[in-house]
Parts: sequence; C-alpha cells; structure tokens
Amino acid sequence: MAGAFLAGRASEADSGASGAPLTYAFRGEHQAGIVTPAQDRLHFAAFDVTTQSRAQLVALLKAWTAAADRMTRGLSAGEIGPVDGADNLPPDDTGEAIGLTPGGLTITFGFGPGLFRDADGKDRFGLADRRPQALVDLPHFPGDNLDPARSYGDLCVQACAEDPQVAVHAIRNLARIGFGTVAVRWSQLGFGRTSTTSTEQSTPRNLFGFKDGTANVKAQEARALDEHVWVGGDDDPGASWLAGGSYLVARRINMTIEVWDRQSLGDQESFVGRTKGTGAPLSGGEEFTEPDFSMPGHDGPVIPKDAHVRVVHPDQNDGVRMLRRGYNFVDGTDALGGLDAGLFFLAYLRDPRTHFIPVQTRMAKADSLMEYLKVTGSALFAVPPGAGPGEHVGQALFA
Amino acid sequence: MAGAFLAGRASEADSGASGAPLTYAFRGEHQAGIVTPAQDRLHFAAFDVTTQSRAQLVALLKAWTAAADRMTRGLSAGEIGPVDGADNLPPDDTGEAIGLTPGGLTITFGFGPGLFRDADGKDRFGLADRRPQALVDLPHFPGDNLDPARSYGDLCVQACAEDPQVAVHAIRNLARIGFGTVAVRWSQLGFGRTSTTSTEQSTPRNLFGFKDGTANVKAQEARALDEHVWVGGDDDPGASWLAGGSYLVARRINMTIEVWDRQSLGDQESFVGRTKGTGAPLSGGEEFTEPDFSMPGHDGPVIPKDAHVRVVHPDQNDGVRMLRRGYNFVDGTDALGGLDAGLFFLAYLRDPRTHFIPVQTRMAKADSLMEYLKVTGSALFAVPPGAGPGEHVGQALFA
Repeated sequence: MAGAFLAGRASEADSGASGAPLTYAFRGEHQAGIVTPAQDRLHFAAFDVTTQSRAQLVALLKAWTAAADRMTRGLSAGEIGPVDGADNLPPDDTGEAIGLTPGGLTITFGFGPGLFRDADGKDRFGLADRRPQALVDLPHFPGDNLDPARSYGDLCVQACAEDPQVAVHAIRNLARIGFGTVAVRWSQLGFGRTSTTSTEQSTPRNLFGFKDGTANVKAQEARALDEHVWVGGDDDPGASWLAGGSYLVARRINMTIEVWDRQSLGDQESFVGRTKGTGAPLSGGEEFTEPDFSMPGHDGPVIPKDAHVRVVHPDQNDGVRMLRRGYNFVDGTDALGGLDAGLFFLAYLRDPRTHFIPVQTRMAKADSLMEYLKVTGSALFAVPPGAGPGEHVGQALFA
Repeated sequence: MAGAFLAGRASEADSGASGAPLTYAFRGEHQAGIVTPAQDRLHFAAFDVTTQSRAQLVALLKAWTAAADRMTRGLSAGEIGPVDGADNLPPDDTGEAIGLTPGGLTITFGFGPGLFRDADGKDRFGLADRRPQALVDLPHFPGDNLDPARSYGDLCVQACAEDPQVAVHAIRNLARIGFGTVAVRWSQLGFGRTSTTSTEQSTPRNLFGFKDGTANVKAQEARALDEHVWVGGDDDPGASWLAGGSYLVARRINMTIEVWDRQSLGDQESFVGRTKGTGAPLSGGEEFTEPDFSMPGHDGPVIPKDAHVRVVHPDQNDGVRMLRRGYNFVDGTDALGGLDAGLFFLAYLRDPRTHFIPVQTRMAKADSLMEYLKVTGSALFAVPPGAGPGEHVGQALFA
C-alpha cells in the first residue's frame, strides 16, 4: 500500500564531505528522480509491452526494480557482473559503466495508458478497472505535430545522472533485461537540465539562451509538492495504488533555432517577458522578483499580453504549478539543415486535467513563443510511488 | 606559412592550481582539439558552402577564427555580447552558455574535397591546384551503408568540451555566423570519449563495454606524432599550406547493441581479442601489455586470426598508427526498436592513403567485429595547421 512506510528518503544524497560518490536511494516513499536535485544528463525511454502475460509483466517489474536498485548504487545491473561471468553466457551487465562512479543516477518508472487497455481496447493485464481517471489521452493542442515514433508508450523509464554514459548504461541494461517482454518504442537523450528542483541549484538556460524554470516547484516547498505534484490518498479511490505517486508529462518541443537567432534582443525579451542576461521580469528587479503584469510600458503593459512568463504564470492559471525536470536536446540536423534541437519537457504534476491541459491549451493559443516551437513528441504516464524494502515498482497496482 | 611561428602551444591547458577554469589556446602551431587531452563531450558539424564567392568564404573563415578564439577563452561569440546589445538587433551570441565555464572548449576546422572542386567539377574558389593529393574520395568499404545526409561536407568543425552545452553553443554560433555562406549538412553529438590522447588519461569504454583506444598515439609521443599524425613539410609540395596540419577521418559506426548484448562473454572477448574487465590482451598481462599473436590456444592462436586487436594492430598494417579521438553516441531509437547507437570514429592521421584506407579495408574483410557494425556516415577532411596571431584558419591556403 502506498505511503505505508517511511523508511528511506528519495532525496537522500551522499555526496559526502568524505568524497564518497554521489548516490540517491532508489527505494523510498516517492521514486527518486522527481524532487531529487536535477542531474545534468538524461536518457529517457518509452517501451511497448509485447507480452500478453500479466505474470511476465510483473516478473519484468521485479527484475527492473532489482537492477535499478543495484545500478543506482553504482553496481553492475546483475549479480554476476560483466567481467567474471561464465564464458559461455552473455554477461548480465553490458560493461560500459565499469570504472565510472554512480554519477547520482536516478531511475524513475512510469505506466502509460496502454498498460490498462491496449490499442484494440483489450484489457490484456486485467488492470482496466485500476486505470487512474487522470491518465487520459492528451488532446491535440495547436502546435502539435506529433511523430508517433516519438510519442506514447506503455511504460517509461527516466534515467538521470551527471554522466551520460551512466544514464545510457542504465536504459540499455533495462532494455536488455526486458528483451522478449518489452521493446523500446522511442528514446531521447538530453543534456543541460533546464530546470532546477532545489533552491540550492542555480537556474540553467534553455536553447533560446534564457534562464528556464525560475518559478519551478522546488524540493524544499513541502506544501506545494503536496498540492501540485504528489497524488493524494483521496484523489482517485479507484486508483489508490497511485497515492504518493505523480503524473509525468513528456513533450519533445523542437525550437526553430535559426529563426530565433535572427530575432532582435528586444523581441526575444518581449516574447519571454524576462531579460536575457539576468532573467529578471521586464517589470524589473532580479531573477526571483515576482513579475508585475500591470506595469505599463509605452505600448500596453511592459510584460506583453502574449509574453511566455505571463501566459504560463500561476496567477493566470488558477494557481497551478508544475515540477519541471526538462532537458535541452540536440539530435543532429533536420532535413533543412537546421539543428534538430529544443527542449525535452518533463513535468511532474498531481493531475494533468487541472495542472497541464488547461495551461498547455492557453499557451498554444496565446503564447508568442509558440511561433518558434513545434511539438514533435508527447506522452503521459502515471508514476507510481516509491518501492519499499522488498517491494517492486508498482507492486500495489498488481496487488 | 605553416610552421613559421612557434608562439603558443595548442596543448597549453590552464586548469590552474589557482582554480582557474580549464582552457586551451585556440592559436598555435597546430590546431587545438587534436593532441590536447580529449574532452568528454563532442558536437561535430559538417557544412556545405553555399556561396560561390571566394571573398565571402575567406570572410567567413576570418569571422569563424575570431569567434572561436573568443569562445575558447570563455567569452561570448561576438564583441557586443548577448545581453547588452542593441534592442533592435539580434544578439551576436545566442546566450545559452552565459554563466558556464569555458569547459576546456576546443574548436577544430577542416576542409573537405568540395572546397577544391564542387560536385559538378567546378573550381568555384580557384583552389583546385592546391588540393592535397591525399584528400581523396574514400572508396566504398564492405560494411559501408552510408547515408548521404550523414556523410561528406565542404567544411567541418569539431567542438569538444567537458560540458555539452558549451560544445553545442560553439557549433550553433558558428552556424549562425555562417548563415548565407554555409549551411549545416549534418551534425553529430557524442559523449564518453572512446580514446585518450594523453598518457595521463585512463582508457574509456565504448558501447561494446570494452576499453577502446589503448594503443592510441598519445600527445607525449612526439616522434610518433610527426610520423603518423602531422603532415610533413615535404609530404605534398603542391599543398604546402597543409604542412603542420593533418587529415581527419570521420565515420559514424552503428553498433548492433541488442545483438551484441546476447553474445557470450567468451565470444565477445574473442571478437575483440582482449578481456572485458581489464582490457588485457587474451595472451595475458595487463591493459598495456603487447599482445602475443603467436601464443597458441586450444584451437588456433589464443588471440584469434579475426580478433579486432590483431586485425588493426600496427604489426599487421605496415606499422601505421592513428590518433583516434572518437566518441560514443546514442541518437534515440531506430525503426526496429534498437538503440541508434555506436561509435562516432574520429581519427587524425598523416595520410589516409597509407594510414586509413588499407587498415579499414583489412578490417572490413577480416575483423570479426564487423558483424556487429554498420557504417552509416563517412567523411574526410584536410585539417590545416593552427592559426598564428593575427592569422585566420586556413590563411596559407588562400595566400
């Protein structure tokens, strides 16, 4: 039962004055990789479940839990290891992380709509009556240009670490363990976190060159986390297994980099509503000063009606906030010679019906940044609470 | 004239005991980014030249030189900066590296065959008689499955740094500066250097999970560099502008990760000819022990005839060596649900006719690793020597 134990804290980091390597506990009340300090590198994968067997699916979640528990501690994915195994068997770890530190690795699992009912409407795993009501199919938003090969998925795994090789190693070994049960549907690498989840982290910059995530929900804001991020015990009586979990919205947002780079500094700042240098709102102050949306400029308010900071601000959206955990990405070059680059948006929130769909709808209609954005991938997952000692991820769903 | 000055050393690093940020001098006898210690992250771009004007091409090389000189020192790409520029002009830097350290950034430029004669055979820039004889069109090798959209190019830029955002920022700003003169043809991100260029670096692992680059030419081997990496003053009298430079072979080598991961440990080690754990040759010793190709096993030599380490060893290839500077890459997922991943092979060498084509031909025919490799991109560039004070990259070519 979710929330039934309090042993372990997902936010426990050991970056010790002793020089011990940075690690985050895999087991805890909540999954690690949400409020734990955002690492700099990401490998994210969505999987299709290819088996029809509930038992095989549960066995995979058990195996994934064991491997994730090991890898986040800096161990090989399996007990035999990549080096001293039997000559005539494949190693139970692929080896590319040998000699690397754990790198603050977190591995976070999520469940997509297809787990509860497949594309043909079939309840293949007997989970249909436990589908969370908020695990909806996201509507089409203006600006969406979704590639099905970069969207959706029955399961997701978010691997974050300070070293990309560590994050890639984690996804690759989970995919290897899942062979025959799941297949990778899409995966995405990211670098340069675009949000901070701790008041102790400085705000990084997105590929528009602006600070991003200034108003993010932070780990230190316990009340805001309960209000906006964690699913409450009474939120959805039919899906009590999700209490203490969250919802994860993943959106691959391409930026038209080359067009943006030819906009004047003044226009760029008007679109965002903040200065490029300090990140202060155009109404003045410094980065963390609250924007003054009523302050007059010489042609309407100094923060324009269609400025990003205004359109997505909680004051304009019934007070809702998200915990963003996105990453910049560059996937080479598109067919027109532009960078295939942008923001891989990841946001954890309590209910996509109240905390994402209205904000995204508003943004798609009113935000001047939209002219420089194209959403090429999209997915929604229910993120179960953390696994306790001896439990596997999502155990309460199958209980 | 190449080699006419000795001021500055490309390998000068300032990682100061004083805590000063890591930087490498852009100007010097050789370009930085070859023998300087391999950084952990890469953004590599190949460009098509879209202008027909020699003057415009030279102006671009001057502008690129100035911007590279600035960015490698941790400055913005242009003199006005991204923050304090005029409101009505695009910033002369895109901003995403504000607040980041230089990250040991190196920027290395190369010239492809198309600069000397375009696809229609036209000598558009009057450079045909200066084309280096060794700047050949690489032959088709068995195992090549080249995507033209990931191959070739008139110019290349290799940006390496410890922070991917710094490397991406460099390429993006050079592309921005080149708008109207060049267009990005393809670009590739990499992480986890797969080679070391210094005896002080430990050998990293490729995505087969094995140490890679043990026998690489190192910066400390001055004689080997002159013999195998740097173009000599008498190598090519018709292309004396290239003396002190090198040739760069770039190959995007996909690994069939999922198939590899199902091979037994013994088979993996036989294919490579080294142990997975320590990297020692199968004939014994430790990582840097010379392999004993004659040592008998129970069925032929202990290092098989088709083992990678044997096929590419200098003893089997007229003594030639390369300075490898490759990176692992993962570009998401391919159409079959496998990782689109492998090794972005970069090698600097004195003459591709002697130092690459024969070795690659031999490898393509005889190396057991080839079954797990598919080459999807390929390019060859002549890399001019470093720019001295007041010079631009490639100045001697246009003199």
